[in-house]
Amino acid sequence: MRAEIIAIGTEILLADIQDSNSHYIAQRLPALGVDLYYMHQVGDNVERLSGLIRTALDRSDVVLCTGGLGPTEDDVTRDAIARAVGEEARVDVEAEATLRAFFSRRGSEMPARNIKQATIIPSGTILPNPRGTAPGWWVENADGIVVAMPGPPAEMTGMWANEVAPRLAARSDGDVIISRTLKTVGIGEATVDEMASPLLKSRNPTVGVYAKADGVHLRLTAKAATEAAARARIEPIEEQVRALFGTAVWGADETTLAGGVGDLLRERGLSVAVMESLTGGLLASTLTDVAGSSDYFRGGLVTYSEATKIRYGVPADTIAEHGVVSEQTAVAMAEAVREALGADIGIGITGVAGPATHGGRPVGTTHIGVATATGRSHSEYVFAQTRAAIKRRAVTSCLLLLRRAALGQLREKELIFARSREDAQRAGSA
Amino acid sequence: MRAEIIAIGTEILLADIQDSNSHYIAQRLPALGVDLYYMHQVGDNVERLSGLIRTALDRSDVVLCTGGLGPTEDDVTRDAIARAVGEEARVDVEAEATLRAFFSRRGSEMPARNIKQATIIPSGTILPNPRGTAPGWWVENADGIVVAMPGPPAEMTGMWANEVAPRLAARSDGDVIISRTLKTVGIGEATVDEMASPLLKSRNPTVGVYAKADGVHLRLTAKAATEAAARARIEPIEEQVRALFGTAVWGADETTLAGGVGDLLRERGLSVAVMESLTGGLLASTLTDVAGSSDYFRGGLVTYSEATKIRYGVPADTIAEHGVVSEQTAVAMAEAVREALGADIGIGITGVAGPATHGGRPVGTTHIGVATATGRSHSEYVFAQTRAAIKRRAVTSCLLLLRRAALGQLREKELIFARSREDAQRAGSA
Repeated sequence: MRAEIIAIGTEILLADIQDSNSHYIAQRLPALGVDLYYMHQVGDNVERLSGLIRTALDRSDVVLCTGGLGPTEDDVTRDAIARAVGEEARVDVEAEATLRAFFSRRGSEMPARNIKQATIIPSGTILPNPRGTAPGWWVENADGIVVAMPGPPAEMTGMWANEVAPRLAARSDGDVIISRTLKTVGIGEATVDEMASPLLKSRNPTVGVYAKADGVHLRLTAKAATEAAARARIEPIEEQVRALFGTAVWGADETTLAGGVGDLLRERGLSVAVMESLTGGLLASTLTDVAGSSDYFRGGLVTYSEATKIRYGVPADTIAEHGVVSEQTAVAMAEAVREALGADIGIGITGVAGPATHGGRPVGTTHIGVATATGRSHSEYVFAQTRAAIKRRAVTSCLLLLRRAALGQLREKELIFARSREDAQRAGSA
Repeated sequence: MRAEIIAIGTEILLADIQDSNSHYIAQRLPALGVDLYYMHQVGDNVERLSGLIRTALDRSDVVLCTGGLGPTEDDVTRDAIARAVGEEARVDVEAEATLRAFFSRRGSEMPARNIKQATIIPSGTILPNPRGTAPGWWVENADGIVVAMPGPPAEMTGMWANEVAPRLAARSDGDVIISRTLKTVGIGEATVDEMASPLLKSRNPTVGVYAKADGVHLRLTAKAATEAAARARIEPIEEQVRALFGTAVWGADETTLAGGVGDLLRERGLSVAVMESLTGGLLASTLTDVAGSSDYFRGGLVTYSEATKIRYGVPADTIAEHGVVSEQTAVAMAEAVREALGADIGIGITGVAGPATHGGRPVGTTHIGVATATGRSHSEYVFAQTRAAIKRRAVTSCLLLLRRAALGQLREKELIFARSREDAQRAGSA
């Protein structure tokens, strides 16, 4: 089954909003056995839209539209579909009643112009939208299938899950494609490639190796008649990967690094506290993005000035002697916060976020100190990026070091001059 | 001048990556006087891609492509363009030398397959790419213009700014469209609409009113033969808006709320310190996303547990009597951090991030306390959203309260039960 996606709205072409619906749908088609050939964004123009729907129907089986279902004159998706399939829309009595009820629940009367939201064409079925006033359309005839979903993501995703995906699954006879991503850290891409080389020959599932900001990922992708059969193909290979890489595997699929590290800390009964300068609170915020993080997160101090660092236990001498952006200050920050908050692991981060250099240190210089009951560790990086990217990459590095500390694998000293991994990758491809 | 954008890459259709290039280009076309009619995403398939380029050329003046310029067999953009315009590619001697030099600067030899990156067709010109190995193409003939830019955003944006935008500007004879956004806060959308009603009739520039998460925005959009002429049309209307809304206008265009609030604090010589529970460091991180924030940001404490709150100055009695999620605790947090860090303004945030309720308080309950030299203020919200969205919305609320405190406009008590503004908007439109 071949599909195309059309996102509708002049505001997308004017870049007032970014179309996120198409990506959302694209992510979910492989598991339904549906192949995606084109995505398009087009304005609220009935000629161009109906022409595009017609072209798409001529070469594909399913056309998935989002947007343009509102009550105003600008909203032309229904007209364009009717025109593309050569049918005429009429008011649906039941849909009208639902719509009037929606407004009266909110204590208002339905404006006259909203009646167009209760229309349908003969080959179409109305798809309910409990989250808004715009119901969807499922149109199915000899030409193929055209689906219209509302543009607001909260409404679209609800209608997708409840109405559209089940209908597509019932009609699709294609093989289902399922992926599973296993995330590793501490091993370079080339080494992962080499270690996994016997697996890389596998045809179903296929195994791919990808370098990402949070380490190297292995993606297992299987094809089978059903989702269960595809998962059954992945399972034994996943076991082999896990056996091969051991604790280097820190998570799978949607697990975030903070979530994976959090699970590990909880499992081992360890707690953490952080003192941040460079990252300004982003490490604490990332750790607490995880539900249940209060089990292991003791607290954080954002010490953006020297005075605040000293106030919270960093020896003034250390800063005076080595500078605020230094190995010694980073380690002292880690020690101070560990002790103050009674945590098993303390982390300190200092560096130069830019735009200006600091005491001769270039923008992007990052020192991370880690303190545990048994020792101290220091890592230095230079991230050549924007302020926001430096903060993000510094947080990722902290989480990786925290994971190593929890595993008792911390090396005493590390000195890494990291160029942006993305930059390095980009240089080799396009 | 009419344009279409085509983003190329099977990984976009498989949703492995999200196409951000098209949005980037779409944002920049109005200022060049170029109208955008379609955007497309298509896989690395030479048949489908050349067909799409041909269709686009038949109805538009310019086709802007990104992606598919790498050295591998998968990268077919050059072939597809050549096929679409009926020409044949040959190796360009100069481009080959540049490419070889790129590799030798990195201490390696150019792999044989990379030679395709040095090819060009007769009606084309090579566009340099100092950030990578994939040069672009500018093809211009009787059919129109086809541009090929690399897919990695860092390379694409560089080539756009240096090569593509200037050439488009030179060829475009359309009116230039320029927008200016003025951001207000503290006034509801309906009131802004009413206050601005004489301006809303203006045709050039037009004035639009938009409710956003950080307040109500007014967008002035002018059309003229040149950018300067368009800006000259906007200026007097901007002055009128500023006169009308006074201090309610906190920023313009790309200014973030944290940046706008920061400017205000600096201007008035005020400093701030924060104690965060619910937001877990995100407020401090957002404040320090702004370059130069150390001028006014004294520091932050992330007190995720009762013990940490007490350790940093929140009276244990207050928590015992009123609970950790309460008006009294939020205000005590603000007072404690203000005093500890010697700031002019202290902010305390406590609440329920979820997934579970806390002491009978529903998920999304948010208490924000503000302490200044002259008084204390408390605000309560219930944000009905996900954990991440609750954190973001709480931070926005803190920044708005901080701004009010800096302006000396803080009310002593505020009790607001906020439903998600986005939800409310969505319910009324699609």
